[in-house]
Amino acid sequence: MFVSKVFRLPEVSPARRFPSFSACLPEDIPSRTADHGPEPPVRKPPKGSSQLNRWSRARAIRSGRRLDSPALRKMTAPHFSSPPPTSSSSSPSLSQLDEIPPSISDDFQDDGEVAAAKAIYMVSDGTGWTAEHSVNAALGQFEHCLVDRGCPVNTHLFSGVEDVERLMEIVKQAAKEGALVLYTLVDPSMAKSAEQACKLWGVPSTDILRPTTEAIAAHLGVAPSGIPRGAPGRKAPLTEEYFQRIEAIDFTIKQDDGAQPRNLNRAHIVLVGVSRTGKTPLSIYLAQKGYKVANIPIVMGVELPKALFEINQEKVFGLTINPVVLLSIRKARAKSLGLDGEMRSNYSEMDYVREELEYANKIFVQNPVWPVIEVTGKAIEETAAVVVRICHDRKQKCLMPRISKRY
Amino acid sequence: MFVSKVFRLPEVSPARRFPSFSACLPEDIPSRTADHGPEPPVRKPPKGSSQLNRWSRARAIRSGRRLDSPALRKMTAPHFSSPPPTSSSSSPSLSQLDEIPPSISDDFQDDGEVAAAKAIYMVSDGTGWTAEHSVNAALGQFEHCLVDRGCPVNTHLFSGVEDVERLMEIVKQAAKEGALVLYTLVDPSMAKSAEQACKLWGVPSTDILRPTTEAIAAHLGVAPSGIPRGAPGRKAPLTEEYFQRIEAIDFTIKQDDGAQPRNLNRAHIVLVGVSRTGKTPLSIYLAQKGYKVANIPIVMGVELPKALFEINQEKVFGLTINPVVLLSIRKARAKSLGLDGEMRSNYSEMDYVREELEYANKIFVQNPVWPVIEVTGKAIEETAAVVVRICHDRKQKCLMPRISKRY
Repeated sequence: MFVSKVFRLPEVSPARRFPSFSACLPEDIPSRTADHGPEPPVRKPPKGSSQLNRWSRARAIRSGRRLDSPALRKMTAPHFSSPPPTSSSSSPSLSQLDEIPPSISDDFQDDGEVAAAKAIYMVSDGTGWTAEHSVNAALGQFEHCLVDRGCPVNTHLFSGVEDVERLMEIVKQAAKEGALVLYTLVDPSMAKSAEQACKLWGVPSTDILRPTTEAIAAHLGVAPSGIPRGAPGRKAPLTEEYFQRIEAIDFTIKQDDGAQPRNLNRAHIVLVGVSRTGKTPLSIYLAQKGYKVANIPIVMGVELPKALFEINQEKVFGLTINPVVLLSIRKARAKSLGLDGEMRSNYSEMDYVREELEYANKIFVQNPVWPVIEVTGKAIEETAAVVVRICHDRKQKCLMPRISKRY
Repeated sequence: MFVSKVFRLPEVSPARRFPSFSACLPEDIPSRTADHGPEPPVRKPPKGSSQLNRWSRARAIRSGRRLDSPALRKMTAPHFSSPPPTSSSSSPSLSQLDEIPPSISDDFQDDGEVAAAKAIYMVSDGTGWTAEHSVNAALGQFEHCLVDRGCPVNTHLFSGVEDVERLMEIVKQAAKEGALVLYTLVDPSMAKSAEQACKLWGVPSTDILRPTTEAIAAHLGVAPSGIPRGAPGRKAPLTEEYFQRIEAIDFTIKQDDGAQPRNLNRAHIVLVGVSRTGKTPLSIYLAQKGYKVANIPIVMGVELPKALFEINQEKVFGLTINPVVLLSIRKARAKSLGLDGEMRSNYSEMDYVREELEYANKIFVQNPVWPVIEVTGKAIEETAAVVVRICHDRKQKCLMPRISKRY
């Protein structure tokens, strides 16, 4: 869901407009690029520091200071027909809006840099998450352009678009902004209207889900219902999967960070690794998919719970990570937690990190049934895909490995 | 991600093959359909009981007892060329596999009912989550068939397919099973191979993401990279969004169920509602999208934390639900927790449920700034879409409401 944003702006000191703004974002983390030496020209190694530095710049932008780069100044906002937001207002609603995280914030429409970006409109008569997911995945194919060649893109999600009037408004606005319209409209008359209106106003457009739906319709020999999700006539979501998923989430939250080892036997998946290898977000991601996940931290000097070795060992997965990357993540974390002095140096220094990873590695060697997954450079979704694949491969010893579901 | 499965099998007593199997699923919940009177013929009201009843039947199926219905017996498994799993084995690996939740379990290939289902293969050179998401969404358009007319579908996800040999194996197997192949292969030569092989072997196939990718390529005037996610050459995921998301998840877990009211001001979204209105799964879903969420239970006789009324009121959302549905969810929950006697009757009886919802309603009336969302019949994703939409609409008072992101 999360694709990188680029901030190629000069560093300036953050001048926050709203006093409440600082409350919802971590403290500034100074640039530490010097720690890592020069960077290769094309592919950058994963580094928390420069990314966090970008984040801090992003916040500076959002805090409303002026842009100094002439290259940016000449990028004006020719397309936006709506009046700019009243940026000097300090009404409660505006101060709240500032608290939405920067990547999903909308208050960048008065920002010269971003207005020059190409716009992609995603229009859905449902939640819009399918459009968002597909567009994110497709944009992954343009990272070389987004990151290196500087063609910024803004996506705009219009969800719950259930009447033609609203649809027409959106298409008209897309025409004004020169946007691409990508839609998932399951009501055939809405889809037709979108197609015709886009044609009429010269807006490039694509129905994201139609090829998939048509292929399935042909395969099943059944026409699609044309009823959006959540509309009357669609079935209620209180299916067994619903309960299974809720239970998995409840279980996983309660088992976070080594809590309640007596329940380990009830987990579908048990993740083991040192602090900041991403055990918690991975657990949560898998829980959303219906797996009950427990995660257990490896801490030097703290024995792993006995129960871990008594449960089915094929449930257990080790996570490991490159020490340099781990150190940068931990440093960022320590700073964000406001830790310093003794504790921080102990937690984040390189020797300690290496020693702890070696300690973890020894445990992994002693437990050869546990697959050990290298998480360096992997998104949560990617590690999750590996875990799930191994889980299912293990049970299909004589079949072609696959993850199957019934509908 | 979770679409309903159908189990139209006669009720039989569960006869579990594997002793470890019962450990990972909740206790049997007896059918309580009598509580609710007769059902309308087409659209069923949301009911935990009958769904859970289905679940219990599903477990009976999975536990390996024989199918008694002649209609089911005549559905044989003509397509599967692989040998059936060794069902009488009691090796640790098989007992583990049973612990994977039923909806995402693969061990149904020896099951007469399901083998008669139409197969959909999803093939990806990445995580496969985009294919899965799109196919789930598209299958939502065939619920009328899946549920009411009985054309079961099995999906099979093949992720991380990075070489042509594996791709060919999968396509061949699809041909044998009469499967539809839906793929997201970003490497153009892989996509071409899939297309040609499917044509050659008469397998219907569609490239799920191609129309979207091509539309974006034309819009940006840039060719897609053709590099799968996670492949060398793709950027590392330690972006600011990565850290933002991790922080959101960490925050949300710590704030679950009214914990640490002193941190409420740091939340982007605060959910308020009585027990079992889905606050926790909704919080977690939103956290995955980068929002820091706190949730606070409304319990009669327990005062809401003062901090809730001191923070920006535009962050707060009330959740409400139909009392009959809530009661059925709570009864299922109480049973699964093993609660009975005093506590259970107090927690789950109708009068109490109504009274508590009225109590919540009074609080909502006293706080008119809080939008109150009716969650009855809504999937978590749908409620999340409503919350996010309101969040963003509120900040765009003079713009066309949309949820925007920068790339």
